Amino acid sequence: MMSRMWWSLVTAAAVVLVGCGGNGGGPSGGAAGNGDAQAIAAARGLTPDDVTAALKTYMPTGRHDDYIMFSSGGHSGQVFVIGLPSMRLIRSIAVFTPEPWQGWGYGVGDEILEAGYVNGNELSWGDTHHPALSETNGDYDGEYCFINDKANARVAVIDLKDFETKQIVKNPIANNDHGGTMVTPNTEYIIEGGQYATPLGNEYAPIDEYNESYRGMVTLWKFDRSAGRIDESQSFALELPPYWQDIFDAGKLASEGWIFGNSFNTELATGGIESGNAPFEAGASQRDADYLHIIDLPKAEAAFRAGKTSKINGFAVISLDTCVKEGILFFAPEPKSPHGVDVAPKGDFIVVSGKLDPHVTIYSIDRIKQAIADKNWEPDQYGVPVLDQDAVVEAQVELGLGPLHTQFDDKGYAYTSLFLDTAVARWTLGGDYESLNPDVAWSLVTKIPVHYNVGHIAASEGDTVSPDGNYLVSLNKWSVDRFFPPGPLLPQNFQLIDIAESGDKMQLLYDMPIGIGEPHYAQIVKADKLSPWTVYPEIGWDPLTQKVDSNAAKAGGERVVRQGRNVDIYMTAIRSHFTPEHVAINQGDHVRWHITNVERAEDATHGFALPAHNVNLSLEPGEAVTFEFDADQAGVFSYYCSEFCSALHLEMAGYLMVKPTAL
Amino acid sequence: MMSRMWWSLVTAAAVVLVGCGGNGGGPSGGAAGNGDAQAIAAARGLTPDDVTAALKTYMPTGRHDDYIMFSSGGHSGQVFVIGLPSMRLIRSIAVFTPEPWQGWGYGVGDEILEAGYVNGNELSWGDTHHPALSETNGDYDGEYCFINDKANARVAVIDLKDFETKQIVKNPIANNDHGGTMVTPNTEYIIEGGQYATPLGNEYAPIDEYNESYRGMVTLWKFDRSAGRIDESQSFALELPPYWQDIFDAGKLASEGWIFGNSFNTELATGGIESGNAPFEAGASQRDADYLHIIDLPKAEAAFRAGKTSKINGFAVISLDTCVKEGILFFAPEPKSPHGVDVAPKGDFIVVSGKLDPHVTIYSIDRIKQAIADKNWEPDQYGVPVLDQDAVVEAQVELGLGPLHTQFDDKGYAYTSLFLDTAVARWTLGGDYESLNPDVAWSLVTKIPVHYNVGHIAASEGDTVSPDGNYLVSLNKWSVDRFFPPGPLLPQNFQLIDIAESGDKMQLLYDMPIGIGEPHYAQIVKADKLSPWTVYPEIGWDPLTQKVDSNAAKAGGERVVRQGRNVDIYMTAIRSHFTPEHVAINQGDHVRWHITNVERAEDATHGFALPAHNVNLSLEPGEAVTFEFDADQAGVFSYYCSEFCSALHLEMAGYLMVKPTAL
Repeated sequence: MMSRMWWSLVTAAAVVLVGCGGNGGGPSGGAAGNGDAQAIAAARGLTPDDVTAALKTYMPTGRHDDYIMFSSGGHSGQVFVIGLPSMRLIRSIAVFTPEPWQGWGYGVGDEILEAGYVNGNELSWGDTHHPALSETNGDYDGEYCFINDKANARVAVIDLKDFETKQIVKNPIANNDHGGTMVTPNTEYIIEGGQYATPLGNEYAPIDEYNESYRGMVTLWKFDRSAGRIDESQSFALELPPYWQDIFDAGKLASEGWIFGNSFNTELATGGIESGNAPFEAGASQRDADYLHIIDLPKAEAAFRAGKTSKINGFAVISLDTCVKEGILFFAPEPKSPHGVDVAPKGDFIVVSGKLDPHVTIYSIDRIKQAIADKNWEPDQYGVPVLDQDAVVEAQVELGLGPLHTQFDDKGYAYTSLFLDTAVARWTLGGDYESLNPDVAWSLVTKIPVHYNVGHIAASEGDTVSPDGNYLVSLNKWSVDRFFPPGPLLPQNFQLIDIAESGDKMQLLYDMPIGIGEPHYAQIVKADKLSPWTVYPEIGWDPLTQKVDSNAAKAGGERVVRQGRNVDIYMTAIRSHFTPEHVAINQGDHVRWHITNVERAEDATHGFALPAHNVNLSLEPGEAVTFEFDADQAGVFSYYCSEFCSALHLEMAGYLMVKPTAL
Repeated sequence: MMSRMWWSLVTAAAVVLVGCGGNGGGPSGGAAGNGDAQAIAAARGLTPDDVTAALKTYMPTGRHDDYIMFSSGGHSGQVFVIGLPSMRLIRSIAVFTPEPWQGWGYGVGDEILEAGYVNGNELSWGDTHHPALSETNGDYDGEYCFINDKANARVAVIDLKDFETKQIVKNPIANNDHGGTMVTPNTEYIIEGGQYATPLGNEYAPIDEYNESYRGMVTLWKFDRSAGRIDESQSFALELPPYWQDIFDAGKLASEGWIFGNSFNTELATGGIESGNAPFEAGASQRDADYLHIIDLPKAEAAFRAGKTSKINGFAVISLDTCVKEGILFFAPEPKSPHGVDVAPKGDFIVVSGKLDPHVTIYSIDRIKQAIADKNWEPDQYGVPVLDQDAVVEAQVELGLGPLHTQFDDKGYAYTSLFLDTAVARWTLGGDYESLNPDVAWSLVTKIPVHYNVGHIAASEGDTVSPDGNYLVSLNKWSVDRFFPPGPLLPQNFQLIDIAESGDKMQLLYDMPIGIGEPHYAQIVKADKLSPWTVYPEIGWDPLTQKVDSNAAKAGGERVVRQGRNVDIYMTAIRSHFTPEHVAINQGDHVRWHITNVERAEDATHGFALPAHNVNLSLEPGEAVTFEFDADQAGVFSYYCSEFCSALHLEMAGYLMVKPTAL
């Protein structure tokens, strides 16, 4: 019996689709007739699962995605914005790396990039790792995105009104980080944990003084939401032992006020393969356990406010001794060499994966609090209380080889990436979640293979107090044979997995090559939580201050003003001309060039390219930009609009004439 | 009667697919059951056309695309590699803009980028316009890709063995270009035409000397295929009148040996809206006709070889007078303000679109040759012969508003983008192509709307002597409402169109947002014409020279060598350690750091990040890189592998210890 529901939903052409028409199209891929879905699927060798996946991910023209994923760009230094379920790359947001399409570092945002330099040395890239969306009551609120730079220990703030980077702060005490940038449940703090221990404050010490002179750290950056900026004066760091800290997560609900991190190399290995020592990969993997870090944030804040800090490079640091004395820092043994430390939606459990142990280990916040109250601990070599493992562990679940990171859904499941199995495991939570999956708490449900070598995974709203389920993205590090090889540097592979159904059903929907960076982690938010501007609110808008620049060029007020050797150019851009079209100056002048895009139409972006000067702007509707340079090159330079803005776009140009000093 | 063909092709699960099963899944998108294609399509509101498109573009995991598109990245400065029909971005190739994921400009390729600087001024971006694939006998041969930088008049060479940029040449006489980088049929020359006239050689002249001191140009870069490089010594330029040249194409087959270009602003407008003059958009659009440029390449080569050149900045230039005297340069009137000049597959016709005229104008090479033989011309104000329009035009076809660029297929059709209609027109060629579409030569067949404001279009193998048909990509400049808006800067929109069927059938298959640049033009090659390496041929490979570097670090030969203040570090990378792991030097040393990735496995890429030094390498299997720096910062810097290469990737690190001068 044919179902009739379908006929009422689509037009008569669907007769062909559901197989009651003839095979009008030929069997070759290109020649199959429109509508002849069977013939197309057959000719292309698609299986029924492929057909399902194709239909679940396809977006007809104009259809918007349901979810937006903010993905780190890895060592591209950027953040990628990807729609789900289509897996289309909607935008790369320039963060740590100059990017001329956005004008970023080519006249736009230069001062933000410069704020991230180290001792005046230009840093024009970053290794972005863990983007984190701002939260309100533990749920993504769609206002900001934060991201860290592992290579240089920096944190950036992106405003999701215009998807542009507004701030880069350099960590004053560390030269690398890793465990950023998860936030506390109301975005009071952005967490930045270190990675490879070094002498704090970028001091020098030889490696044989490792135990006494090298240190780990975690920094708590205070976020001022009304200003949209990190407030460095209200931020502080904790000195940690020279274990290599990995990743941190903030507690929420049951664990609000606590911060959890993990670590490896509690062996204090210092490497030196060239001298016959164990290389780090072996030396840092000798002990059975490393240490889960447990931080009491209110006590840390109290110590900071009470001035129980020292200053390193002018930045407030709570010493390791103070951390111990004030009850700020505790450890708990965790399976060695862990990657993930992920707090379950209700805040009750903390899931840790030791990548060399086939289990995930689940800690209970209630048990942790009790162990602290009971002083059920032994100090480590630095005096930090190490809680009794049996007292704090709720459960262990055997999943497979190389467990790394865990995400959560709305059905009481957790998902853990398995690097060596190259798979994603679904398993059941216990405790308060057990009612969702009775009688099977803390057990593996199923695994789905991924291609290949998954690092992080991201589930829709998967880091919040109310995950959505529906989709999970596997951030695979290797693609090997999945795509046409564009030379020896292969793309990474994002795989979209359907997790909407319960039980052992998880379907691979889509392979997305990432050939513009190596993403590390991602967060996925419902699209309707975001409220981006599509044009700037008013003409003359300065995206740096997010208000009108009173000095912006205005229509009718275009002019060139000279004061001695300083020349101010006030220019407007509109389809299809710049005003003025001639700028005549002298070699040696210092130029401040102010340009305003006076358009109000969506997508009416203009570029401004100045040959030989390394200047290119992207001026979105309403945007005003000022850039400066010394006119040290004589000659004639044809500036032009570098966005194809209209039919007469090629005519949108002008001449900068720089008269030689000799004339 | 149900077709049974389907049943034999897929498994029993297909029963559900073709509509004879129940609606097991619910109507909500996420909850529809696997395999229940009807319910999914219905729940997602997909039309039969959407279903067709979804099936034609979907790639199951591991399936490779049939075609590879090389797209300019516009003012991102890069080249994008995209698979068809999936429209997946496989890779961005770093060209003019430093890109740290590839290490480009961060220790890799620095000398290539530096070769593109102007007078020692750093240029770290480009406005890439027209990628061109190398050709043999007028067909893409899959060996090289060329691309120009409009902003700074540069041309780059990409080797398709490893998809890496090998050379950037700066045009010595111009500071901007546009009409690059189409090639002659055996890639003897790469064409680079200018755009905005300036005094050649970057001399200074005020705008009121425009007619006599400003000039256009076209440069013919000689390509040495055996070296894989442009040979600047065998290259030369032609001086052209200060009309603004737009785009060039090389003749082929019937027109081999000829080069065609177009121009606008034959009005010699100089703008100056701020002084009450007509802005360029109006001033450059006053005359009814501009000039098609027709260049006799053998005669130009003969003049160059005979030394009938002058030198500008050391570069050979054939003067405008010599061009006229030697019969090298001819003009023909063309509808005003043209964009495209496209040579048909047999080389017999040249299609020009004047964007302010609703027609395309088709010139015949036979008619052009005859008019030259007949001296059927009048000189323009610079003495260049302007051929009689009636004598050289074969046909005109009215298509719609804003015709720009034309591509060709295997069925006797041409396709022209219509910017103002925001559509792509299909029309019939006449002459020798008429047999494919009898009795309808030179007529509009149909138009398909695109979203929105199409610039260039690209058809599969569409610039060759044997186009494929099958697919056409519309490179749309505006996306407006097509995608979720990632702030005021919207992505561009590539739309994939199925052109496999004849007549009025063209189907829109896919919308691909481009949020990493504004692509200008693209070429599409059959994937099986490319033979990329997936690992470098031997360990110690230098991609710059494409051979083994005898000075590369070798396994077992790792060491640190000091000579005075010069320190050479020889290091290897392998899963999961660098050797050495400790490097101790002194502040003020000059460091040359040699690293070899000694892996042979596909995708076993290692990164090398050096904090605070702006260094990041991408070391593909076998690759050897050397970078240098002055150790001016004292401190301890943890270098590490920035590609997630193994389960023990985090442990792949080491310490650079720079002892302060004071100690």
